[in-house]
Amino acid sequence: MLNRLKEILTGPPLPTHQMMSKRLNKIRALAAFSPDALSSIAYANQEIYLGLLVAGSAGLALAWPIGLAITTLLVLLAISYYQTIQGYPSGGGSFIVAKDNLGTLPGVIAAAALLIDYLLTAAVSLTAGMDAIASAFPALLPYKVIMALVVLAIITLINLRGIRESGTAMAIPVYFFLITYLAMLAYGAVLAVIQGPGSFPTSAPTATVPVTLFLVLHTFSSGCTAITGIEAISNGIPAFQPPESKNAGKTLVIMAILMGLLFVGSIGLTQYLAVTARPDETILSAFAHRLLGNSIGYYIIQASTTLILAVAANTSFADFPRLAAILAREGFLPRPLSNLGDRLVFNNGILMLAGGTAALILFFGGDTHALIPLFAVGVFLAFTLSQTGMVVRWWRKKGRGWGAKAVANGVGALATLITLLIVCVSKFTQGAWIIVVLIPIFVTIFLRIHGHFKHVSAQLSMSGHAPSLTPGPPPRVVVPISGVHRGIVGAINFARSISPDVTAFYIEMEPGAAERVKNDFERWWPDVPLVIRPSPYRSIITPLLDFLDETDQEHHDGQQAVVVLPEFIPAHWWQTLLHNQASLMIKTAMLYHRRQRGFQRVMIDVPYHLKK
Amino acid sequence: MLNRLKEILTGPPLPTHQMMSKRLNKIRALAAFSPDALSSIAYANQEIYLGLLVAGSAGLALAWPIGLAITTLLVLLAISYYQTIQGYPSGGGSFIVAKDNLGTLPGVIAAAALLIDYLLTAAVSLTAGMDAIASAFPALLPYKVIMALVVLAIITLINLRGIRESGTAMAIPVYFFLITYLAMLAYGAVLAVIQGPGSFPTSAPTATVPVTLFLVLHTFSSGCTAITGIEAISNGIPAFQPPESKNAGKTLVIMAILMGLLFVGSIGLTQYLAVTARPDETILSAFAHRLLGNSIGYYIIQASTTLILAVAANTSFADFPRLAAILAREGFLPRPLSNLGDRLVFNNGILMLAGGTAALILFFGGDTHALIPLFAVGVFLAFTLSQTGMVVRWWRKKGRGWGAKAVANGVGALATLITLLIVCVSKFTQGAWIIVVLIPIFVTIFLRIHGHFKHVSAQLSMSGHAPSLTPGPPPRVVVPISGVHRGIVGAINFARSISPDVTAFYIEMEPGAAERVKNDFERWWPDVPLVIRPSPYRSIITPLLDFLDETDQEHHDGQQAVVVLPEFIPAHWWQTLLHNQASLMIKTAMLYHRRQRGFQRVMIDVPYHLKK
Repeated sequence: MLNRLKEILTGPPLPTHQMMSKRLNKIRALAAFSPDALSSIAYANQEIYLGLLVAGSAGLALAWPIGLAITTLLVLLAISYYQTIQGYPSGGGSFIVAKDNLGTLPGVIAAAALLIDYLLTAAVSLTAGMDAIASAFPALLPYKVIMALVVLAIITLINLRGIRESGTAMAIPVYFFLITYLAMLAYGAVLAVIQGPGSFPTSAPTATVPVTLFLVLHTFSSGCTAITGIEAISNGIPAFQPPESKNAGKTLVIMAILMGLLFVGSIGLTQYLAVTARPDETILSAFAHRLLGNSIGYYIIQASTTLILAVAANTSFADFPRLAAILAREGFLPRPLSNLGDRLVFNNGILMLAGGTAALILFFGGDTHALIPLFAVGVFLAFTLSQTGMVVRWWRKKGRGWGAKAVANGVGALATLITLLIVCVSKFTQGAWIIVVLIPIFVTIFLRIHGHFKHVSAQLSMSGHAPSLTPGPPPRVVVPISGVHRGIVGAINFARSISPDVTAFYIEMEPGAAERVKNDFERWWPDVPLVIRPSPYRSIITPLLDFLDETDQEHHDGQQAVVVLPEFIPAHWWQTLLHNQASLMIKTAMLYHRRQRGFQRVMIDVPYHLKK
Repeated sequence: MLNRLKEILTGPPLPTHQMMSKRLNKIRALAAFSPDALSSIAYANQEIYLGLLVAGSAGLALAWPIGLAITTLLVLLAISYYQTIQGYPSGGGSFIVAKDNLGTLPGVIAAAALLIDYLLTAAVSLTAGMDAIASAFPALLPYKVIMALVVLAIITLINLRGIRESGTAMAIPVYFFLITYLAMLAYGAVLAVIQGPGSFPTSAPTATVPVTLFLVLHTFSSGCTAITGIEAISNGIPAFQPPESKNAGKTLVIMAILMGLLFVGSIGLTQYLAVTARPDETILSAFAHRLLGNSIGYYIIQASTTLILAVAANTSFADFPRLAAILAREGFLPRPLSNLGDRLVFNNGILMLAGGTAALILFFGGDTHALIPLFAVGVFLAFTLSQTGMVVRWWRKKGRGWGAKAVANGVGALATLITLLIVCVSKFTQGAWIIVVLIPIFVTIFLRIHGHFKHVSAQLSMSGHAPSLTPGPPPRVVVPISGVHRGIVGAINFARSISPDVTAFYIEMEPGAAERVKNDFERWWPDVPLVIRPSPYRSIITPLLDFLDETDQEHHDGQQAVVVLPEFIPAHWWQTLLHNQASLMIKTAMLYHRRQRGFQRVMIDVPYHLKK
C-alpha cells in the first residue's frame, strides 16, 4: 500500500545502469543550477534598496556604485570558479577543494557552511517568491507561510522523482524568467534614453539617518546575496553530460554573464528612473510597475519572478543532497544519506533538506528580511576556503601558467574574505551570530561521527590478531514460553533440531498459574526439562536474564546459552498493537541490558504466523 | 537513564504481594471516588443558571423545582447502586452488570459509554476548575487551557505513582472542600433566616425567550450532570479494604448524602437570595461573593472549588484504567491495557486517559460549556443499562425480597432512561450527536478486537489435530554478509555449530565490488560456499528473498532455509542512526513479505558488539 503510494508520487524504481542517461545537457543544466544565482537579484535589489532608503535620496544614489562593486566581485568569482571546474573535473565543491588542499578541518568547515547555506537559500527563495506574489496581490499577504510550504512540498516531490525530471520541470520557469526580464530591461533602456533620468518625488524618501561607512558596508553585504549560487555548478559537475568539466565551464560563463546583465541592468535603471516603492511592495515590483504600468506585462513579470524564486529553492535540492552524500560516504554524516534511492537520487538528503527548510520558514514566519542576515556568512566562508584551497593547489602542482591561475584564485579568495568580514561585522547582531555559533557545532558533530566510523572500521578489520574460525559444539538452548500452545511447537522443534540440550523456561506472573503449565508441558514434552521462576515484580525480563546468567555460570563451558523465541505474528500489522509485545521486549532487553550483564547472546526467532 | 527518570517520577517498582496493602480505607476511598460526584455541583449549578437566565427572573425561579427533581433522581440512583454493590461485591461496573445479565452487546455498549464519559469527566472537571480560578482572578482567563494541561500532567503523575498515594493526595482537597462548603452553606442558611428572601435587581436579567417545556427539559438535562460520578464506587469495589462491599456501600451512602446536601443547599440559597452573576463569573462564585463579600473567605471558597474540580478529574483516573483493564482481560481492548505496571496500577490506561483528556481540552479550547452537552449521554446510557441488568438479575435469582429490590432498580432504570431521552433530544444538535455516533464506533471496534482474540485462541489451541512434535534434521543455513570483516565471524561460527549445510550470500550493489569479497572470503573460509548476486535496483531485500526461495525449491526437502544474520551493534544507541539498517530491513521484510512469498522463516541474530 505504502509502496504503491510512493510509486504514484515518485515513479517506479530505476536500475543503476540508467545513471548515465540521467545526465544533463547544457540547456537543462543551466536550468537546474542557475535559478538560485539568477533569482537572487529579487532579494538582493530589495535589500540594497531597504538598506539605503533610511538615508533618503542621498542614500539611494549609492545603489549604482554598490551594485558595480558587487558585479566586480561576481566577475572575480566567476573566473575563480571557472578554474575550479577545470581543476576538479569530478566535482569540486568547496568541501572537496578545501579538504584536498587545506586539510580535513577547513574542509568540514566549508561543508558545514555550505549545508547551512543551502537550507537558507531554499527558505529565502521561497519566502521572497511569496513576497513577489503578495506585491501583485496584497490580499495574499496573510497566506505567505502556508503558500511557501505548499510550493516546498511540490519541489520536494519533483526532486524525489529524479534529477532529469527536475531539470525538465525547471527549464520552463528559468527560460521564461530570462526572456521576460531581458525584454523588460531592454524596453526600460529604450525608455530611459527617450525620457532621460528621473528624479525622486518630493513626497518620497526623507533621510532618517546620515550616509555612514557602516551604512554603505551593511548595504554592500546585504547586496552580496546577489552572488550566492555561483558555486552551484562547480559542485554539480558529475550531473553534466561528458565532457563534464568543459560543459560545466561553458555553462558557468553563460550564467555569470546573465547574472551580471540582470543585476546591473535592473539596479542601474531603477536608480536612473528614480523608482521608489510602497512599503508593502518590493522594489523590483515598483520598477516593473514604473515601466509597464498596470498592464498584463506587469503581472507577467511578477509571475516570472515568483516562479524563478520558487525553482531557485530547487538549486538547493540539486546540491544539498549531493554534498550530504559525499560527506556521508567519507564518514562525516550518517551513512543512509549516501544511499541512492529507487529513482537514483539521494532521497534521505532531499527529505532532510525539505524538513529543515520548512522549519526555517515556520520559525521565521516567512519573513525574508529576517532570514537574509543569516544568509551570506556561510556562502562567503565557503567561497574563501575553496578559493584559498585552489591557490595552494596551483602552487603545489606548479603546472603551465600556474602563477596567473594562483593570482586569479588568490584575488577571488581575498575579495570573498573581505566580504565575509564585512558581512560578519555589519550583520552580527541581526542574526549572523547564529551562523557563527552553528558552524562550530556542525563541525564538531561531523568530526565526532567521523571518529565513530574510524573506531568501527578498526574493530571490524580482520587484520591484526586473527579471529578464531572454529565453530563450537552445539549450543545450549533456552526456550522461554508463555504457556503451552501451538505457538511454541515450532520453536521447541527447531531448538531440538539444532541441539540436544534444550530447556524450556516459564515465568509465573500470577501465583498459582505455574501448576497447570507444568502438567500440560510434561504431557506434551516429557523429555524436555521445564524451569519455572516467579516474578514478584511482574517483569518478564529480569527473571529470564537472571536464569540465563545462572545456567551460563553453572556450566563453566565458556559458552552462552542461546535463546529461541517463539513469536506469534498476527495476520495484519495493526493486530500487533492488541498483544503484549513480550518477544519484542525480550529482544530489546537482550540488546540494551548487555552492558550491565556483559553478554552478547544469539537470539533465534521462530515465527508462528496467525491466519486471521 | 530513562528508567532512573521514571523511578524519580513514580517511585520504585512494587512487588505483587503488596497489592492488598494498597487497599483503601473508607476515609481514603471517599476521597478517591467522590470528587467527581461532589464537584459536579460546580458545573451543574452553572448550567442550570445559564439555561434559565435567558428566560429572565421567571426562568430563574424554576431553579429550585428543577434542583429538587434532580435530587430525587439522585436518591433513586443511590438506592439502585447500593443494591448493585451488594449484588456484585467483586466490582459491579455497568459493563459487568449489563454483560452478565443482558448479554455481551449491552455490556460493551455500557463500556463504550462509560469510557467516553470518563474522558469527558476529566476534561470538564479540569476546565470548570480553571473557570473557578478565572472567576476570582480574571487576569488568568487567557491561560485557562495551558493551566488545565499542567494540572492534568500533575494528576497523571500522581496516579502513575499508585492508587494509595493518589488517595492520600486527594484526601486533603476533598475534605477541605467539604468543610469550607458546608460551613458556607450553614452561614448562608443563617443569613437567609435573618435577612429573608432576596429579589432580583431591576437592572438584572431580562427575558429574551419565554419559559417553554423545552427550556425546562433542556435545563434539567444540563443539571443532571450533577449526578455523574455516583457510579464510581460500584466500579471500584476491589480497591476497598475487606469487607469490600460493606465498606463500599457505607461510603456510597455517605457520598450521596453529601452530594444532596451540597446541591440542594447551594441551589436553594442561590435562588432564595436571588443571586445573579457577571458574564465572566460563575454562579457559584457570585453566590460566594454575595455571602462573603471580598473577604479572604471568598478566595478560600474559590480555591477549594478549583481544588475539588482538579481532583475530580482524578476519579476518572481511578476508574477509566480499571474498566479498560477489565475490557482488555476479556479481549475487547488491547492486552497491554490489562498489565499492572511497576507501581501496581494500569499505567497504559492512565496514559491513554491522559492523552485523550488533553486532546479534548485542546480541541474544545478549554470551554466547559461546549463540553457539557457531550457529557450526560454516556453516563445515563450506562446507568440505564446497568440498572436494567440488575432488574433482570433479581428476577432470575429470585432471592429473599427480590421483588422490592427489582422495583428499586427498575424505578432507577426508568428514571435514567427518561433522563437519557431528554438529554439526547434536547442537546442533540449541541454536540450530543457526537456521542450518539461515537458509541457504535467504539462498540464495533471492541467487537472486532474480541473476534480477533477468539481466532487467535482457536489457532493456538493444542486440542484437535495434534501438532507434530518431532524435530527435523539440522536446517540448511544461509548467512547474508555485507563484506569480509570481524562482524561476520561470530555468525558463520554459529551457523557451522548448528548445521553442516552453510552458505554465505553476498549482494553486489556496485558493479565490480564482488571480486574482492570473493577472494577475501575464500581465503578465510575455503570450505564455505559463497553465492554472489547482483542487485540492479540497489535493493538488498529482493535478491535475498529470491535466493532463499530458489534454494528451498532446489532442495525439495520441504524445509525452509534458516537465515543467520550477522548484526553489529554500536556501543551507544544513537550510533545506530549513523549506519544503514540492513539487518533491521531484512528482519522487517521477512515478517511482512511472507504473505506474498508464503514462508515463515526462522531468523537467527548473531550480534557483534562494538566497544566505542
